[in-house]
Formats: sequence, structure tokens, C-alpha cells
Amino acid sequence: MSGNTIGVLFRVTTWGESHGAATGAVVDGCPPGIELAEADIQTELNRRRPGRIASASPRKEKDIVEILSGTFQGKTTGTPISLFIRNTDADSSAYEGIKDLFRPGHGDFTYFKKYGIRDYRGGGRASSRETAVRVAAGAVAKKIIAAAGIEVVAYTRALGGINVGFPPGKNRITREDTDGNSLLCPDPEAFRKMELKLAEARHEGDSLGGIVEIVVRGCPPGLGEPVFDKMDGDLAKAIMGIGAIKGVEIGAGFRVAEMRGSENNDPLTPNGFLSNNAGGILAGITNGDDIIIRAACKPIPSIAKLQKTINVHGKAVDLSVGGRHDVSAIPRIVPVCEAMVNIVLADHLLRQRTVSA
Amino acid sequence: MSGNTIGVLFRVTTWGESHGAATGAVVDGCPPGIELAEADIQTELNRRRPGRIASASPRKEKDIVEILSGTFQGKTTGTPISLFIRNTDADSSAYEGIKDLFRPGHGDFTYFKKYGIRDYRGGGRASSRETAVRVAAGAVAKKIIAAAGIEVVAYTRALGGINVGFPPGKNRITREDTDGNSLLCPDPEAFRKMELKLAEARHEGDSLGGIVEIVVRGCPPGLGEPVFDKMDGDLAKAIMGIGAIKGVEIGAGFRVAEMRGSENNDPLTPNGFLSNNAGGILAGITNGDDIIIRAACKPIPSIAKLQKTINVHGKAVDLSVGGRHDVSAIPRIVPVCEAMVNIVLADHLLRQRTVSA
Amino acid sequence: MSGNTIGVLFRVTTWGESHGAATGAVVDGCPPGIELAEADIQTELNRRRPGRIASASPRKEKDIVEILSGTFQGKTTGTPISLFIRNTDADSSAYEGIKDLFRPGHGDFTYFKKYGIRDYRGGGRASSRETAVRVAAGAVAKKIIAAAGIEVVAYTRALGGINVGFPPGKNRITREDTDGNSLLCPDPEAFRKMELKLAEARHEGDSLGGIVEIVVRGCPPGLGEPVFDKMDGDLAKAIMGIGAIKGVEIGAGFRVAEMRGSENNDPLTPNGFLSNNAGGILAGITNGDDIIIRAACKPIPSIAKLQKTINVHGKAVDLSVGGRHDVSAIPRIVPVCEAMVNIVLADHLLRQRTVSA
Amino acid sequence: MSGNTIGVLFRVTTWGESHGAATGAVVDGCPPGIELAEADIQTELNRRRPGRIASASPRKEKDIVEILSGTFQGKTTGTPISLFIRNTDADSSAYEGIKDLFRPGHGDFTYFKKYGIRDYRGGGRASSRETAVRVAAGAVAKKIIAAAGIEVVAYTRALGGINVGFPPGKNRITREDTDGNSLLCPDPEAFRKMELKLAEARHEGDSLGGIVEIVVRGCPPGLGEPVFDKMDGDLAKAIMGIGAIKGVEIGAGFRVAEMRGSENNDPLTPNGFLSNNAGGILAGITNGDDIIIRAACKPIPSIAKLQKTINVHGKAVDLSVGGRHDVSAIPRIVPVCEAMVNIVLADHLLRQRTVSA
Repeated sequence: MSGNTIGVLFRVTTWGESHGAATGAVVDGCPPGIELAEADIQTELNRRRPGRIASASPRKEKDIVEILSGTFQGKTTGTPISLFIRNTDADSSAYEGIKDLFRPGHGDFTYFKKYGIRDYRGGGRASSRETAVRVAAGAVAKKIIAAAGIEVVAYTRALGGINVGFPPGKNRITREDTDGNSLLCPDPEAFRKMELKLAEARHEGDSLGGIVEIVVRGCPPGLGEPVFDKMDGDLAKAIMGIGAIKGVEIGAGFRVAEMRGSENNDPLTPNGFLSNNAGGILAGITNGDDIIIRAACKPIPSIAKLQKTINVHGKAVDLSVGGRHDVSAIPRIVPVCEAMVNIVLADHLLRQRTVSA
Repeated sequence: MSGNTIGVLFRVTTWGESHGAATGAVVDGCPPGIELAEADIQTELNRRRPGRIASASPRKEKDIVEILSGTFQGKTTGTPISLFIRNTDADSSAYEGIKDLFRPGHGDFTYFKKYGIRDYRGGGRASSRETAVRVAAGAVAKKIIAAAGIEVVAYTRALGGINVGFPPGKNRITREDTDGNSLLCPDPEAFRKMELKLAEARHEGDSLGGIVEIVVRGCPPGLGEPVFDKMDGDLAKAIMGIGAIKGVEIGAGFRVAEMRGSENNDPLTPNGFLSNNAGGILAGITNGDDIIIRAACKPIPSIAKLQKTINVHGKAVDLSVGGRHDVSAIPRIVPVCEAMVNIVLADHLLRQRTVSA
Repeated sequence: MSGNTIGVLFRVTTWGESHGAATGAVVDGCPPGIELAEADIQTELNRRRPGRIASASPRKEKDIVEILSGTFQGKTTGTPISLFIRNTDADSSAYEGIKDLFRPGHGDFTYFKKYGIRDYRGGGRASSRETAVRVAAGAVAKKIIAAAGIEVVAYTRALGGINVGFPPGKNRITREDTDGNSLLCPDPEAFRKMELKLAEARHEGDSLGGIVEIVVRGCPPGLGEPVFDKMDGDLAKAIMGIGAIKGVEIGAGFRVAEMRGSENNDPLTPNGFLSNNAGGILAGITNGDDIIIRAACKPIPSIAKLQKTINVHGKAVDLSVGGRHDVSAIPRIVPVCEAMVNIVLADHLLRQRTVSA
Repeated sequence: MSGNTIGVLFRVTTWGESHGAATGAVVDGCPPGIELAEADIQTELNRRRPGRIASASPRKEKDIVEILSGTFQGKTTGTPISLFIRNTDADSSAYEGIKDLFRPGHGDFTYFKKYGIRDYRGGGRASSRETAVRVAAGAVAKKIIAAAGIEVVAYTRALGGINVGFPPGKNRITREDTDGNSLLCPDPEAFRKMELKLAEARHEGDSLGGIVEIVVRGCPPGLGEPVFDKMDGDLAKAIMGIGAIKGVEIGAGFRVAEMRGSENNDPLTPNGFLSNNAGGILAGITNGDDIIIRAACKPIPSIAKLQKTINVHGKAVDLSVGGRHDVSAIPRIVPVCEAMVNIVLADHLLRQRTVSA
């Protein structure tokens, strides 16, 4: 038990269920003296909000964050920062009908098996709602890493089989590029095709998967703690721990399986690395080049199409999941990925400060 | 700092450099009363030994493990188990010539940037030698999970672009199948082609990457701690934290990006799941089905082929890495993957025991 | 940094400043299926409330707890329990005048030195207000240990030099005995003398110290994790970490320094131990006898009497602390001690469940 | 389980049983570039050695430490430091006769109850032998804190009821003073009386308790992490977690219970604090003044005098513990106390480095 905290020095603990009174995060270990206002966090939260992006989500949550502790006169004090979001849009009645069913692809079955009891309303703790406070905590982490010159940009690389037109890896994509459309996809042409795919899937009562790419620029070399708290290990845990993610790769990723050493090794020159197959990480420690991460995102499991499942009594049932559901976890998962990377980097940045004697 | 421990209740701490006096692991949290002998551990270590498999490694390390604490009269006592391997085959003279160079693809550059000092002999702490004691610790973990009916089987799925002939995912492969040849590849035909690829790469002074697949059978539902210590998150960290690994996927993995929800969701019936795209994990908790993990392994960075690099003074140098080096991290990395999965499962099995009130 | 969490499996994280919007605790690792209502927690909180006890405190905080997550239909679900207390009685204006001063005996100076910034209103994070949510979290822990037959009773053993009339150690004192008067002192005669001492000190603008004794009954043998997370070590940390505490002893405590082995050793018989100098703990593990803890509580540092101090510019200042202040941390600290012991026991009870193979 | 590690950033894990093949400590998180030789550690170990001090211990252990990893060319590298002591003087035959008995005052009974199995030879894991490697790890910590100008001096304050002639608290005692005699007692007159007491107790087949005082000088203000990892909390845990310790106090300690605020508060002036009742710690954070700790040490439980106990079958037995046993844990426990304080300070010194933004 006790798995609701991440980080060693920059520690984030989240709490809250989808249809509970509120959700929140406690951020412990944020250095003092950093300017932090609710607006800094709200900006990030708004990017994740359903409804913001008409095509992907019909929901209209309004996540208004409050900072309840840890700041004084606009600055952090070094004490725990309590981030708080009251739930306002929770209509639980829709879940009464399926409270005894295990929705395929969801955590209903596994939570029941683990705990013997579950809050069935809106997915309870397993709901993607929990990721809102991760984004809030990530906004605090962002302040720390930004002060060190580190920038994290995540975007939609693929959706429903449509890929962006540029190769994976190092690039110059900015938030202006990503926020140019509702799918956080920096390739306008791919975006248009993705829109069509989404419309089609929604019409068929189905859902779509995709790929998120995250690029970290300006990260100094030396971050990451061998041999178990390596930078790639911690990033993999943080990203794989997001609900819909089923795969994580760094740099050339799965392509390395077919490469030769002479091709995969990044030559080092007085002007830096000539390639970046390593994705900015060697032996678990950042090498100063861009960190490149890709994550595979499964289709939203809640679909209108009829599915086979069972109920708590083990009886077979046919289920069509109604209600308001996204067709894809993308684009809402994009800022969540960004937040998790922010959190991991802030933690390792602080850890590295203890290395100098 | 302090990244050399993994696990919450079943905790493994490793220490040791490639060419130091010894390497070791301290296993804390092993329940008492389990029969444990050095032979149990040696069996697993022997599978990882270079030289065991003629085609992949010309080295002849002999890793003899000693249990220095934590057992009494052949049984564990609940106190820390100290596993100890003395280094015998370390000839450091070969490293004198390259002590000021950063070998491409290795941790030389990043360790230097992180710590400002490094043991350059044989890769120091970043050497794959460190994984020997992971395998030893994994053998202890295996005792715990075996008692709960859990079995972990890892094997070579791909090497140098050659894939086994059966699809990824659920299967009946046993250790007899994997240990039938020197590459731990359960497909004899693929094995023969891989052998040729290895010979070819060695001849060219180059190296090869590949894919390891790990299957966990008999795992009860309910293991994994949302929301940050999920089973898939912890597995991803454990596997990605192995030196050569650049990608980790669970179940259908990256293929989910192109799937639809109706296709990806595993239907649940009174007789179990009809498919296993989830790879045995839903919402970060095991669902009772087989856990399926694949890891992408980069080619060994030490190659005879000439490479560009720099020295500690920032000057460009051309480098051909001589000495005894494997052509591929496969098959030696296969038991390491298995060990890391054993360790994660043992930890979560113990954590789940605290859930019942 | 990141010191705001206690426990390994039963983990409590607190947040909040004295005059912030709210304070709270996140309890992670509580087993599922336990009946838990706000009333269970409120009962404990009310014992700590200033104003409840006329003689010791002129303040009138009303701490109303809300459970914001982690329960469903009256039972815990295994997910984090967010306990929340809104601040209602915070008048910060009184602190404007002393915002640049370091009050002697308080954390003003050390917080400033540590963080370079501090919330000076009411002691900020260092305020005893933070202990309210510890009591709330302790009420959750109490549910777990009560189910295992463990009972914790704390009371006032000494105040202002007045001691209770019975010897330290094993006894039959119940909550009925302790709650019989406003000082949680089970000896009515001592209570009357303590009352006089308090009145006298208040009249003189001074404050008083005392001793709290905590007795744990029904604790099974076997709890505590050598060699660093011993039961006595963890209890000492938990109790010493309460604001006003300057000493902690177990069993015979400091008296052992003058004892001989033949006198101090508790003889073991088929019917149990013949004495309890060990205070229920041997080699860091509970032995099944009552756990006996005593804690020395310093006088409240906020006094009306004139004191020497300096301001943030290093200039000497004479200070009389006005406002509403308790004369003694006793009795309010008594339920806090009880709560901390509850928390430590719950954590170790869960840890011990992982020992059986 | 898993309680054999202490520290967050400077982490010490110990392993080993009294009569096993060896004992050791893994020190993780030591900054790189620190000069460290075996001789640095051996010096500290020699102070703890039984036999060094004729009057208190008839044993002749020779603890020779080896550094097996984590240093290169005489300097630390930032990787884990493995400290290793082979057992040479272990004659287990003496324990065959009492293997089924629970020696009063020892951990025999509680280890059996906890684990259901125990290594009965020489106390197994609960033996004071384990503290040798704590002293070794403390020597590494000492290097870190010494570089920051911090010095820790521990000495015998009382033994068998004989107290040193100077008051507790701030003083100028040096290691030269403490090492002037075999009891590490800086008061020669008290030392002579203690010697007599020891001789008397040994003659009677009995043992003695005492008090150790530890003074920390040169500690910068700002160390300690509220609200749970406070400096006093962590010190209390570290000291109480030493086998024989039953009480810990800071500064004025238990005397605060009888003090008034006007007397206990340490006035702050432009030239520092006028007194040090706080023992250098306010609100859990160091204030720059000397840290003063006292620990109460119980008499050695192994005595020749006849005692009542039971065996594993619950049958009453009369026991006289033979063999080589110290009459008092003092003076050998003195360097152990020092080591534990070194370890806590090193950890908090590193933690504080992460506070500056």
C-alpha cells in the first residue's frame, strides 16, 4: 500500500476520487522563495480541461485550483504546498446502473480484486480526474526546472493511426506550435486527418489510441541516480503510471533492437553529440542533449459499442457504456505527460544539488 | 543521490564496481523461514555468465556467490541477506589507454559530468557486472513469488532484426524451451539465424540490439499500488533501469496506438479474459492474467569499428574499443530482466499482504 | 527537504500553516473496509481543542474535520484519506507588530535561517495548530490498531513540578480517568494542585512545563523492525518530533542509568514478565507487555514577561508576547502524543503482516 | 520489514549477525571527491573495540575494516561504499547450551516472536556486534560533516551512579579529554570511582548502566526538516535505536518539565543565545548553538547472577549467563552514539543543500 506519493526530494502526494468532494495534491520539498500564484497553475490546468477541445471531449469540467498552504506573500516558503480542486461537475447517478459491472479495459475489476470494495462512481480513484492535480503539481515543478533553464514540450505525435509528418526525436516545436489546434498536434495537416478519424470513431461508438512525444530541452548533464533511480527508469515509471499508457521509449526506443552499435552510438565531438539515439540519457544520467520520450496511449475503454463483461457475481453481461466520454485520451493526456516529466526533473535537479561536496 | 536501492518492503541495495574487489547486494525484507542455499542463487547466476554461451561472449567470468548473512541452518531469518561475489577476472590494464576518453554509448561522459570523478576501469559502477548481483537478489525474490505460485519466464524475442516465429504475448514457453540454446531463444530456427547475424557483426567489429520478452504466469489479481507505484510503473522503472534498455511495453504495447477501443479492450467472461492486450495489468493492478512485458535492448556500445569521440580535455579523438566484449547484451540481459521482474513482484506481493484489515 | 510525511506503510503527510486557509493530512495506506466517519475523528479532535479546558487555554478554535476522499458509503476504500480542517479563528493582525522579531523559544529564528522566508503569522508551519491534523490522522490509525486489540492511553503525569501520586509504568488508567478533569490528569488531587500552579503562572505572565505518560496495552509481541526502524526508535522520533517535547524515555527510562542488570532485567516466567523496566520493548521489538513512554514537555515559550531577543536586522529588542496563549502545552499535547503513538503502531502492525511467508 | 536502512540522502544499510561470516554496511549517497582511506575508518573502529579497555570488557575482537567499493585512487566516487568486516573471533559453541532459552533483557524472546526463527549464536542480528559497522559508516559521515566545520564529541557522563563533576550541556571537552582513560570519561576523578564500581559489579556477577552525553559543535543553523523529519526527532530515533538505550533528551531535557518559560527560553542577543536549554534545536531545526544530547544506557543484560526465564516450550528455567561479557555497554557505546549522530548530521546537511532554489 501507500503508493500515492512520487519523488524523493520533490514529493507529490495526490488524493481524491472522481466523484468525491474534491481532489488535491500535496507538494513537499519545493524550495523556498519561488514566486507562485494560482494563475501559474491554472494556466496549465486549463490545457487539460475537457471541453476545451470540442472534437475530443464533450465534457465541461471546470478545474479551479486553490493553493491552501506553502506560500506567503506570493512566494513559496519551503513548507508543503496544498493544491486543491473542488469537484463541481460530478453527476453520479449515471453510475448506479453499472455499479455491479466491471467495465472492460477499466480498473473496475482490479480495484475490486485488490481492495474488496470500490467507489464505482466515475472510476473512483482510477479516474483520469486524478491527473488534474498531477498537472497542478507539475506546474509547481515547472517553476523549479524553468529556473534552471529546462523546458519540457509534449505533443500529439500520432492519433488513430495518423502520424505527424516529421521524424521522432530532436526538434524545435514550441508550445505555440502545439497549442495551435485542439489536439495539441504541431502538424496542421496531420491534425486535420486526426479530426476526421475522431469524428468517425465517435460516430461508430468507438475510441482511438495514439502516441505522445515529450521533448526536454536545456537539461544539464548529470541528472539521474544510478543504479536504480536512473533518469530513464524514473521517467518510465512516471509515464507508464499514467492511466492509458502501455509503452514508453527513450530516444531511438524500440528501433534500437534492429540497429547496430556503429549506427546507434551517438558520436561525441567538441561541439556536442552528432546524433541523439540515446535520447539524452546515457547509463541513466542525462548527457546534456535533448531528452526524447514517447508514450503509447491506448484507446479510451469506455465505448458505446456493445462489449462482453461480467458482474460482481461472475455472471456474463453485455454492456454499452453510455454517458459523456472522450474518444481519445489524447489530447488531454499530453499535459499530464508534460507534468509527470516536470515532476521527475525537479526531483532529480534537487537530488543532484547534494552531489557536490 | 542514494539511488542504489529498489523496493519498498522487499528492498535490494547493490554495490560494487566492475574492477573493484567485489560486488554485492543486500536484500532486506525477505520473510523468514524460507529455504535458501547458495546453490539456489548460483543456478541463476550461471545463466548470466559470459562464456557460458560461446557465440555471444568471449569472456570467462566466474561469479561465485556467497551468502554472508540473513540465513541460519539453511533458512532465511528475516534479517538482511548479504550476497557477495568476489571479483577474480578483472584485468584493468586494458583501460589505462582509454582512461581519459569518453567511449560513445557508454556512461563515461555522464558519470564524469555527474560526479567529476570516475572509476574508468571496465565501466566502473556502470558496468553490466553490477547486474550479476541483481540476478543473485532476483533468485531470492524468486523463492518468495514461487511460494505464491508465480513464475517468470524471459527469453530472446528478437536479435539483430531476426524475430521468433510466434506472436508476442501469452504463450506456454518454459525454461526448458529457453535454455535449449545459447541465446535463450525458444525458437530454434530463429536461433540459427541469430547465430549467423552475431558471427557477421563480430566479424565486422560491430554489435547488435534485440528484444527480450518476459511473461509472468500465476500472478494473483490485486498486485500494484495506485496511483504512483502501479505494477506497470514499477516494472517499467525496473526494466528501463537495466543498462542497455531503451524501451518497455506492456501487453499490446505500442500497437495500442493504432487500435480502437472495441479491439483493444479485453472482454471479460465468467471463464476469464478473452484476450490479453492489457498484458495482465489494468489501472496499474494485476488482473490475474499473464503479465507480458517487452524490452528493447540497444547494441553493445563497445565496438572495434572506429568511432568519433572526445577526451576529458574536450579534444576530438578516433577510437576503436578493443578487449573482450560481447556482440550483444542478449542473451546475458535475459536473466537480468527476469531478476528485476522477480524483485518487483516480490515487493508487491508483500505490499498486498498489508491490504487486508 | 520533504520531511512532512511519517510512516512506511501507514503514511501520514500533513500540510498547512497556522493562519492559512486550511490545514490537512493525507493518510495513505489505510486498509480498506474499515468503518470511518467524521464523528470518529471529531471526537478525538475535540479533546485537543483549546477552550475546552478553561484553565489552560483562553483560545476558542473550533476544528471541524471533513473527510474529502478515501471512504465510500462509510467505509475506507484503501485509497488516500484526505482530512481537512478549514481555519476559522485566525486573526493575523496581532502578528504584524512582531513580524521582524524572533520570539525566544520559538521556531522564528530557525525557520528564517533555514528558508530565508517565513510566514510569521501565528508561528506559520511551526504552530501547534499543525498538530490538530495529526490528531485527526491518529484517529484513523486508532481504528486499525483497535481492531487488533491495541489501546493507547495518554495522560498528564506532571505539570509545573506537581506529579501524580502513582509510580510511572504499568497501570489501569482509562480514558474515563483521564477525561475526568480539564488537565487530562487521572489523579484528582494532583489536578487541583496543578490548577493552582497554572493560575499562579498565568498571573505572573509565565508558563509551565510537564510530563506526559503514554501507555499501550494489548500490543502483540513482534512489532518493530530492527535495526534502524525499531519500535522504540520510531516512537522516540514520533514523540520528539512534537513541538514542545525535549525528552523521551521508554520503560524505566533514565532510571536505568543507576540500575544494575539483576535489577533492570525483567524476569520471564510461564505467566509473563515479572516486571516491566523494558517498557514493553526488547531489542526494538515489542514483547507483549505494556509499552510505557514518557515525554518531557517544555513550558510554552510565548510569555508576557519581558524577554531579550533580536530582530531580523540583528538588533537587540525587549519583547513581551501578548495575545492568546496557553500557559502550558499540557493538556493539549496529551492527545497529540496519543495520536503519534497510534500512527507508529498502525504502521508497524501493517509492516509485521508482511513477515509471515 | 526492511528496517535496516537509515537516512534519506546519506543512507546507511547494515547487515550481518554476531557469529556469521562477516558484517558490513553499505553507505549510499556519500558525495564524490572526498578523501577516504581504510585508516580513517579503522581509527574510529579501534575506539569501540572490546579489550581496548581492560576494565570494562574481557573480549578481544579485532575489527579490521575493508572498503570494497565506492572509492577510487583514495577518493569517494559518489557510488555506494561497501564497508566490510570479517568475523574472526566467533566461538558459537558457548551458545549451544542456551539456544532454547530466552535470556532476560535480550532480544531472544522478541526475535523469536517476530520471526519464528532466530540465529541464537551470540545474539544474532541483535548483538552489539552490529554496531561496529555503524561506527564504520559514521566515520564516512564524519568526513562530510567535518568538511562543513561540524564536530561531534561523545563521552561518558555517568556510570553505575557515578556522575562527572561538571554540569550537562555546553562545554569544551575534546577527544583528547575523552580518550584520556579507558572509560572515555573526561573527568579523571569520576573515572576512578567508575572503575571501582565496575570491579565491584563484575565481582558480584552483575552489570551497570550509565549516561552518554553527545555535544555537536559548529553546526550551522537551518538543519532539520519539519514537521516529521526534525533534527531532534531524527537524533532521537538514531540514538534510541542503539541496543541498550532507554531514554534520549535534548538540551535541558527532562528538567524542562519543572521549568518556567521565563527560565527555559534562551534569550537571543546580537552575540548569540545567552543560554542553551534548547540544546541547539528550535522547532526541530538547528539554531547554530551546540547540540546537546544525553542518552540513558541500561545495564548489560548478560549477567552471571541467577535469573528466572523460560525456554521456547514455555517452561521455567533458572539461568546464569556465562561467557565473555562486558559489565557495561559504556564505554563501547560511546563511539556508537557519536557515529549515529554523525550519520544523522551528514544526512541533514545534504538535505539542506536542496533548500536553496
